[in-house]
Amino acid sequence: MLIGSQTWMFKEEPANISTGVVGGPFEAEGKLSDSFDKLHEDLWMGEDSYEKAQKVLLEDAIQIALTKRALKKEDIQIFIAGDLINQITPTTFTARTIQTPYLGIFSACAISTQGLAIGASLINSHYANLVLTGTSSHNASAEKQFRYPTEYGGQKPPTAQWTATGAGVSILSTATQLKSEFPRVTTATIGKVIDMGITDPMNMGGAMAPAAVDTIMRHFADTNRTSEDYDLIITGDLATIGRNVALELFQQKGVHMPEEKFVDCGLLLYDDHQNTFAGGSGPGCSAIVLYGHILNEMMEGKYKRILVVATGALLSPLSFQQNESIPCIAHAVSIERK
Amino acid sequence: MLIGSQTWMFKEEPANISTGVVGGPFEAEGKLSDSFDKLHEDLWMGEDSYEKAQKVLLEDAIQIALTKRALKKEDIQIFIAGDLINQITPTTFTARTIQTPYLGIFSACAISTQGLAIGASLINSHYANLVLTGTSSHNASAEKQFRYPTEYGGQKPPTAQWTATGAGVSILSTATQLKSEFPRVTTATIGKVIDMGITDPMNMGGAMAPAAVDTIMRHFADTNRTSEDYDLIITGDLATIGRNVALELFQQKGVHMPEEKFVDCGLLLYDDHQNTFAGGSGPGCSAIVLYGHILNEMMEGKYKRILVVATGALLSPLSFQQNESIPCIAHAVSIERK
Repeated sequence: MLIGSQTWMFKEEPANISTGVVGGPFEAEGKLSDSFDKLHEDLWMGEDSYEKAQKVLLEDAIQIALTKRALKKEDIQIFIAGDLINQITPTTFTARTIQTPYLGIFSACAISTQGLAIGASLINSHYANLVLTGTSSHNASAEKQFRYPTEYGGQKPPTAQWTATGAGVSILSTATQLKSEFPRVTTATIGKVIDMGITDPMNMGGAMAPAAVDTIMRHFADTNRTSEDYDLIITGDLATIGRNVALELFQQKGVHMPEEKFVDCGLLLYDDHQNTFAGGSGPGCSAIVLYGHILNEMMEGKYKRILVVATGALLSPLSFQQNESIPCIAHAVSIERK
Repeated sequence: MLIGSQTWMFKEEPANISTGVVGGPFEAEGKLSDSFDKLHEDLWMGEDSYEKAQKVLLEDAIQIALTKRALKKEDIQIFIAGDLINQITPTTFTARTIQTPYLGIFSACAISTQGLAIGASLINSHYANLVLTGTSSHNASAEKQFRYPTEYGGQKPPTAQWTATGAGVSILSTATQLKSEFPRVTTATIGKVIDMGITDPMNMGGAMAPAAVDTIMRHFADTNRTSEDYDLIITGDLATIGRNVALELFQQKGVHMPEEKFVDCGLLLYDDHQNTFAGGSGPGCSAIVLYGHILNEMMEGKYKRILVVATGALLSPLSFQQNESIPCIAHAVSIERK
């Protein structure tokens, strides 16, 4: 059911019954290394291209999520996923491997919550009993496509971010008896494209912050909630610059947003000694942190209700060549556990 | 509700209350020129890049669809769309223009029916009362990205296809009183990725045919229907080669498929005197033909029940560089009018 103007309410409260989280060697050195199900030591994952390596990350995450609940890929009714790479190739190749019905999606680093929103809507409406959703990114495949091959060693400003190498997936289910145990998706707020005219591809956090703020404010208005109703509000990859911009925007608009409960996946993933410029980014970043660290903490009883707001900078190398500013979008999902 | 293993049934039967169909100068010379709402004489549409020209096609189609029913863009609750271009840039820029909540999708030339399926599911489940969905393609932006700039005048084999320049959109609504008048979306079958090992990017129809056949057979099994239950079964852009492969596959598998009711958008759009090799293609091709010609004929009472099966070749220039075969997917939607 639509509530307000942009928010879907899921009465059936689809349960997140399993997750799979996989990372690369740089993520293994980060703050959340314990929350991964698998960490690859080799950035190539044994493949001959970074795009194929990215596919391996996603395939591994899926296999892990299935195995945890003794499920087979044939049990999954639909796979909803995407990634940053042109024509979402790593995701498509994964869909070829797992052979389930497949919906490709694209909203850059907002893919994790877009997939969760569509997946929850399908469960809620009985179009599927088991939905698989997730996303991936790979530092080297993203650098190669959007900037320069890493081998060039190009200089970056401190506003730049580090694309995470990793994949995170979730299996959603209708299973009513599991609801009290597992985190449930209760609402989703679908964002609009927000573009404040920023044209610097080395400042994605600053470009994305207004989209995150817009969707969060819309979510509060639609659900009649405030930050007080949430134990944690988690943005995808605003990193240092974007988080500061967002906090300032909330203040300007008179929205109460306590700093201690406003956290960012891009600032949680890596350790201070790792030079990630302003912080982590990439669709994989929010998927890794949400489906690993955050849901683990939720299962431990640390949070009862969280709002996850993944935000995508819908840029392409082509749009920069054409001097376009960066359109951004954020999709929010509330997750609860009794 | 899920029926069988891959098919969604829409009890509320979302009505297709408006359409907008726009094309380019080459399409104006084709067989269906009368079915366009607008035909541009200039391939650049007054812009300085082909990608921006493609955006204009989609924006025009949307404005036309809104105007036909005296709707404003603010009335639309969600926009579901995508295209072939890296990071679906023309669609994203259109989403920035219209400022409605937006879900980006990607399945190449299967985008039109993927959007229709998701849109119908959202209407059916009361997540939206008015959904806008559609897609676009532009011959020159696609050629430049996937092959060579048209200025090179590269030679092509007769198995190649011609990417259509155009956009087609539909507005779906719950409006019950309109149901008897307008064509309604009644079911959708979500496809799996099918890859038969074809590696020739100049034979997309042949690569895509098995995916179309797989989804059609799954649709028949899930709904307990046969080709006898449909007045017309319309594939997206298999063109001559792909259509022949599909007919042969149906015969091999013992599926009755009368040739006269098995038509292809890629063979309907252009005139014989136009050299389109095996026929038309691109996400815009099926969107133009469905939302223009076919729904017009439906409104005239020519068909009561049709099955539309858009099929996408999920290729990227990158995957060819890596010697990968072409993964394909088809999504089917049944449309009925009393």
